[in-house]
Amino acid sequence: MAKEIKLEVREAVQEMVALGKPPPCLTAVIVGDDPASHTYVRNKMKAAEFTGIQSKTIQLPDTTSESELLAHIHELNNDKSVNGVLVQLPVPKHISERKVCNAVAPEKDVDGFHVVNVGRFCKDLKSLVPATPAGVIEMLKRSGVDTFGKNAVVCGRSKNVGMPIAMLLHSDGIGETEACDCTTIICHRYTPHEELKRYAQTADILIVATGIPGLITADMIKEGSAVIDVGINRIKDEKTGKFRIVGDVDFEAVSEKAGYITPVPGGVGPMTVAMLMKNTLSAARQEVEYY
Amino acid sequence: MAKEIKLEVREAVQEMVALGKPPPCLTAVIVGDDPASHTYVRNKMKAAEFTGIQSKTIQLPDTTSESELLAHIHELNNDKSVNGVLVQLPVPKHISERKVCNAVAPEKDVDGFHVVNVGRFCKDLKSLVPATPAGVIEMLKRSGVDTFGKNAVVCGRSKNVGMPIAMLLHSDGIGETEACDCTTIICHRYTPHEELKRYAQTADILIVATGIPGLITADMIKEGSAVIDVGINRIKDEKTGKFRIVGDVDFEAVSEKAGYITPVPGGVGPMTVAMLMKNTLSAARQEVEYY
Repeated sequence: MAKEIKLEVREAVQEMVALGKPPPCLTAVIVGDDPASHTYVRNKMKAAEFTGIQSKTIQLPDTTSESELLAHIHELNNDKSVNGVLVQLPVPKHISERKVCNAVAPEKDVDGFHVVNVGRFCKDLKSLVPATPAGVIEMLKRSGVDTFGKNAVVCGRSKNVGMPIAMLLHSDGIGETEACDCTTIICHRYTPHEELKRYAQTADILIVATGIPGLITADMIKEGSAVIDVGINRIKDEKTGKFRIVGDVDFEAVSEKAGYITPVPGGVGPMTVAMLMKNTLSAARQEVEYY
Repeated sequence: MAKEIKLEVREAVQEMVALGKPPPCLTAVIVGDDPASHTYVRNKMKAAEFTGIQSKTIQLPDTTSESELLAHIHELNNDKSVNGVLVQLPVPKHISERKVCNAVAPEKDVDGFHVVNVGRFCKDLKSLVPATPAGVIEMLKRSGVDTFGKNAVVCGRSKNVGMPIAMLLHSDGIGETEACDCTTIICHRYTPHEELKRYAQTADILIVATGIPGLITADMIKEGSAVIDVGINRIKDEKTGKFRIVGDVDFEAVSEKAGYITPVPGGVGPMTVAMLMKNTLSAARQEVEYY
């Protein structure tokens, strides 16, 4: 599905270029040497290349001050050749993540982290929606999962993942955006496990974004439900002693009961990258009218 | 409780004045002749007078164009003597409510309807929170209702009431704001009634904002729960033929089962007005740092 979306973006980019317009341009800013961050940015840049989106990575040392980083962002905001700006998180501790996210111009904020984009999607207005939540919804829609009046349970209330997903799942068709119309339950680390289980068992759609490997077991699942696992956990295999990546869901057992399930790795991750490309295209086309 | 809050605001205003500062100033803009809107604005202005907040009402005819209204708002935004600006909703149909709400400067937006304030409270950042949702949370806190890890059900997903209440109820203490930490369930008109009943029966906190008189009956209530009725419905009494105001909750029967319940009229309404005064004070003190 991620490939399909990237092919659609590529086609749209080719159309733009055929009309004599420049291709969309995405710039990533990365501060410091976190290896995971570098891998993420590399994957994004590969997807950009695949889709024909021009891309550029600005690599800054982890000694960069907040004001230096903000100056870079302002420069990118003012650069008309740049359509999308993303600052790879996390930034070093001496820099305010919030200030950085709100420094990117809303119309170039392809990560959808600026308060203006957050406020907009929370009000069912067109906006640049964070790529992971957008990818989750896109998977449900493209898989033909019925959402209307269904029970959706979101485990995890992070501001970049769980919260936006909950907002999109309960969204109303009277806004500018497509409706999902789910009854939506937001669970989090202070939801007692027995309650989480009770809610999960009635969930037609279960989204898990907690960072707790194996949190969701087969006994918590409704037969035939759609399970989307946003977790990415690096755990040590007891037998081999090697590290591997797992999600928050016990994939093997749950996949026998669920109607739909995403694997980790290979599920939400690639969709996130694909939706970032879609956001960059959307930014280049100025599809959102800000005021 | 509303009186208590207004007395606290009055005391704070007196302190400001004693320090030689001007009292906070609230300006309401009202377009057209809707009698309910005029009543609401009058109540707000009365509360302002009580608390020592200076107030002014700008009355415009319903023939006012959108650009004329926006010009008035911009003037108030630029007027340093004005701390709070509210445009009484609804505005006439030829004017875009959204444009109007986003035209008020975020730092003067005492209704909390600007996308920047919405984005901020959705991210657990300090902001001017819409007065009705703020009043609902304030009632829970001041009544000593435990919210930590409890089940909260919100019926209704309107952008000015249900949505913000759900955001505040599931809020996390790692943000700038006080946490509620409820497991939060958002129900709406497409939630099947049987499901609504099932959720409501396990709710420690039940917030109802649907505009459906008598939607919540005693059989849907958990013994000892806190029930807050945001509904305001004008219905005809079958016996007397007279109109009266009722909420969305069957007050008489539910009040025998619930641990806490708000009446309609007299519950959420006065709290909303009191919280608007608190927001105006907060705006005058510039308590929210916008960036």
